[in-house]
Amino acid sequence: MQLSETVEWGLHACLALAMLPDGARIPARALAEYHGIKPSYFSKAMQKLVAAGIVQSTEGRSGGLAMGKPAEDVSLLQIVMALEDHQVLFRCTEIRQKGPCAAASRHYRAPCNIARVMRKAEAEWRRVLAETSLAELRQSATAEPVPGVNEATQTWLAETGAVRGT
Amino acid sequence: MQLSETVEWGLHACLALAMLPDGARIPARALAEYHGIKPSYFSKAMQKLVAAGIVQSTEGRSGGLAMGKPAEDVSLLQIVMALEDHQVLFRCTEIRQKGPCAAASRHYRAPCNIARVMRKAEAEWRRVLAETSLAELRQSATAEPVPGVNEATQTWLAETGAVRGT
Repeated sequence: MQLSETVEWGLHACLALAMLPDGARIPARALAEYHGIKPSYFSKAMQKLVAAGIVQSTEGRSGGLAMGKPAEDVSLLQIVMALEDHQVLFRCTEIRQKGPCAAASRHYRAPCNIARVMRKAEAEWRRVLAETSLAELRQSATAEPVPGVNEATQTWLAETGAVRGT
Repeated sequence: MQLSETVEWGLHACLALAMLPDGARIPARALAEYHGIKPSYFSKAMQKLVAAGIVQSTEGRSGGLAMGKPAEDVSLLQIVMALEDHQVLFRCTEIRQKGPCAAASRHYRAPCNIARVMRKAEAEWRRVLAETSLAELRQSATAEPVPGVNEATQTWLAETGAVRGT
């Protein structure tokens, strides 16, 4: 039942992108390095976020990744769903309609009571993720910075020239 | 992010066991057949429920499976967790502590704000599953029976002699 590790990567990567100055871009390779993640698999995850319109990718020498929409308009659910191949936690295969004692399919109009509870639980999970925007994450990350990280990041960005377009 | 298919099996199997008369047992093979599931993999799932104390297994000619505790005391969360190898949806690998700009680990006492939201969502999912007991499922299944299934089940049980101990 575990979410893909790319969900953790994607959430951190989007948070980092949301903290860039307006117009700035950072290559996927540098963003992977910043998070201590191997670039190849990370780039594939970023491509999923690009495909979903959450992240924008620009080609060329001054190209790189940037947010594809305002952080206020990106929920954590959107990021998770863009990165996960399976869109639901519980898949109902209608077991109740199988086996030697099942009735004709026309008798199964009401949803299975097991699927009903599983979906209700899943809806609560989604609700929390849908209610939290990337902007809120950015706000809490800005309000409670880890000592020294912002300074180290500025130095690293300057040294590597990773950020473009500013 | 998908739950194992054994979760669907286990929930339906526990519901069926919870509907058996007191003292009745049914072999895992017959319970699999009743649900239209191949017995071998199904039996392994049932063993996990036995290991968790949710289902009781009796050996011998008149042996079989029965509930290991009252349906009122079994939540859907217990069944799901007994069947899932991974106990959490979101695994935080502390990405924030990795990479070239991370601070010393002593500076990361507060939980990561990303993990915090992911765990809050997961707690809501768990809450719904923890609040729903197998007894409630049994009640709704009994209150809204699918036409003909109970009769077909009684006939099938009588013909196959699947239920023992009554």
